Amino acid sequence: MNEPGFVVWFTGLSGSGKTTIAVELEKKLLKRNLRVQRLDGDIVRKSLTRDLGFTEEDRKKNIERITFVTRLLAKHGVATLVSFISPYISVRDNARKEVNEENAKFVEVFVNASVEECASRDIKGLYKKAFAGEIENFTGVSHPYEEPPTPEIVCNTEYETEEESTKIVLDFLEKEKIIPLQIKI
Amino acid sequence: MNEPGFVVWFTGLSGSGKTTIAVELEKKLLKRNLRVQRLDGDIVRKSLTRDLGFTEEDRKKNIERITFVTRLLAKHGVATLVSFISPYISVRDNARKEVNEENAKFVEVFVNASVEECASRDIKGLYKKAFAGEIENFTGVSHPYEEPPTPEIVCNTEYETEEESTKIVLDFLEKEKIIPLQIKI
Repeated sequence: MNEPGFVVWFTGLSGSGKTTIAVELEKKLLKRNLRVQRLDGDIVRKSLTRDLGFTEEDRKKNIERITFVTRLLAKHGVATLVSFISPYISVRDNARKEVNEENAKFVEVFVNASVEECASRDIKGLYKKAFAGEIENFTGVSHPYEEPPTPEIVCNTEYETEEESTKIVLDFLEKEKIIPLQIKI
Repeated sequence: MNEPGFVVWFTGLSGSGKTTIAVELEKKLLKRNLRVQRLDGDIVRKSLTRDLGFTEEDRKKNIERITFVTRLLAKHGVATLVSFISPYISVRDNARKEVNEENAKFVEVFVNASVEECASRDIKGLYKKAFAGEIENFTGVSHPYEEPPTPEIVCNTEYETEEESTKIVLDFLEKEKIIPLQIKI
């Protein structure tokens, strides 16, 4: 009854495809009858982090609160899919440490796409505003992004379809026995 | 795999015995092989709510964040035992609404002891400071406490031992079929 869950932590620039892959992965994991919870900005901003902006301090607080929630969910058996830019190595490493303290696996997925590519997608119109100087502290434009030096997985979303990226993550989870191998019938 | 958990929400003055009962209840529920998570000030203050003080606005934010976490835990099958002064009816009622939206039961426990009794216990030495005017916004002294008009349970800790109070809560959970009846062997 008390086996831990696990965490898949998607990090990358705005528009790199973090949430897209997380949503697809969620569907696959739900089909396997796992308890799954996604966490992203849209989900937490209404209550958990609504007082926070985009300064370095606020971004760190943001991930600190997310980490608290993620740790508890992982402790209690939930497959927790976290997608935030989370630009700082130290903050992501702390999330990993906390999750590991619950004996839960932490899988860091670097969702890798260049600023140019993300800006050309510009789904939310944010890059345009950032380049025009209308948004301060925009990651990749006016705020640093620290690439993960040793992520478990890199999804190169400039070259992979979302199905391919999702399969890479799912295959990793199976290979590492974080989820059971699916028996084909 | 996806049955919800439930929430036992302890509300009452500082020193009324909320956490004492929650800790005892946690032991009982763990013995029944349930997933259990306690949430109280000591647990959340380090990360989730460390920026908050004791003004009305901060207290509301505090419970708002707790509610977010509580809801997620209840959604994913965890017996969540929450002990906070949580002095406002509206904020507790919102927690109930959110938890119920996950089809999880919400049991409000009013841990009832008079200010005089709590002050005479004064385990943390806070009442002395509050009466001396050294702490602002101290519930029951210089900040209001809104008693629950219709809690599921009242524990009168002036007259009950902690074992008695815990048994009252446990019996309620069994009676309402929130946890299975324990078979005596």
